[in-house]
Amino acid sequence: MNGDFDPAELKVIAFDVFGTVVDWYSGIAAEAERIVPGVDGSAFALAWRAGYQPAMKSVMERLAAGEGGFTLLDELHMGILEGVLRAFGIDELDAARKRELNKAWHRLPAWPDAVEGLARLKRKYIICTLSNGNIGLLTEMAKNAGLPWDCVLSAEVFKAYKPDPRTYLGVAAVFDVAPSQVMLAAAHHDDLAAARTCGLRTGYIERPMEFGPERPKDVSPRADNTLHARDIGALADLLGC
Amino acid sequence: MNGDFDPAELKVIAFDVFGTVVDWYSGIAAEAERIVPGVDGSAFALAWRAGYQPAMKSVMERLAAGEGGFTLLDELHMGILEGVLRAFGIDELDAARKRELNKAWHRLPAWPDAVEGLARLKRKYIICTLSNGNIGLLTEMAKNAGLPWDCVLSAEVFKAYKPDPRTYLGVAAVFDVAPSQVMLAAAHHDDLAAARTCGLRTGYIERPMEFGPERPKDVSPRADNTLHARDIGALADLLGC
Repeated sequence: MNGDFDPAELKVIAFDVFGTVVDWYSGIAAEAERIVPGVDGSAFALAWRAGYQPAMKSVMERLAAGEGGFTLLDELHMGILEGVLRAFGIDELDAARKRELNKAWHRLPAWPDAVEGLARLKRKYIICTLSNGNIGLLTEMAKNAGLPWDCVLSAEVFKAYKPDPRTYLGVAAVFDVAPSQVMLAAAHHDDLAAARTCGLRTGYIERPMEFGPERPKDVSPRADNTLHARDIGALADLLGC
Repeated sequence: MNGDFDPAELKVIAFDVFGTVVDWYSGIAAEAERIVPGVDGSAFALAWRAGYQPAMKSVMERLAAGEGGFTLLDELHMGILEGVLRAFGIDELDAARKRELNKAWHRLPAWPDAVEGLARLKRKYIICTLSNGNIGLLTEMAKNAGLPWDCVLSAEVFKAYKPDPRTYLGVAAVFDVAPSQVMLAAAHHDDLAAARTCGLRTGYIERPMEFGPERPKDVSPRADNTLHARDIGALADLLGC
């Protein structure tokens, strides 16, 4: 724990969602295999997720050039899905089944520690999402998985995707607190680094199996983070909840 | 109940908040008397609330003229408060106490039926706010009063106040449903009429004591509304929750 950090000063914990709170790899792999019989669910999930960062980058470049409006993640996911289906040589899926598959992101399973860990943190702090997912996606996911958010915040509210500073600073503005009174909790060091640049506290959550059991991720601590926790329950322990 | 309405088609119930879910009159009157000893809390609450519609109208006119940005209700409330304090001849309140008083809107008490009624509706529908209050205000209010929203939607998300159509249609867009699959529940016929124009279903909630026990409000049914309910529990009854 960083020397100058006092948990009593903290007011809000904003959570990255995909990978940090929910297990997109298992969820998408299972839904792909259910909806597209015979497909390699693991490879399908990894390919779909791999299209995510480039798609957001392309929207942000378009917005910076003053062209068109903000695009919801549901639409980006559908565009990436079309490409993945082509790459996998799958051409028999009708529009209704594509839509059902695209909504698999609304039904992702929570990591086993998430619901109880969030409930503990909620007693002492405001807990919200800060995700590039759209509000509808995050709300349906929360309802389905029982995630007890006080509030669903999203790129859709700020009309910018992480790591744009408007998202991190936007959380502090929404709750009328200083950036140092907000912690971003995430399983991704690049997200945390961007939040730190904006003055937020950062809590790294280990998710070694984010990309599946055969591709364990390096989850070594980095000194720049305010806290490092095995899971969300461990974060609650560290914060005295 | 309107003949063409099927509760199974409905997906989302969006609630007006001030007056419909929480009792602003009692809450503000009590907090004013606590923070400004000797003040007539009832008159103070009514005066403060009376400034609300004109203040929003003025912001919407400014935005329509392309001048400046969206203003949060917390800021509008503070501006109105300054005027009410002058009108009541109160000049001894320092900035910290004004801020504390302004945050009374974050601590309003729920009507007695609200928490249980919302919990029942939540089992079958997505339940969200659709209020001109800002996200931080509505989130802190929900946390304080135990309101179990799936999602906090606000004028702040749509950058327009009710009765602007962008707010009602925005709810349908967020959840990717038809306007007829959204119901606005409110204790105010003008709010419901504007929602109806956008194709939403409407549920009137009786709140005869909204302006205090000495100023009972006419809560007669109007045929244009899809449903008419004594309180939120009665709305859950009508919807089979």
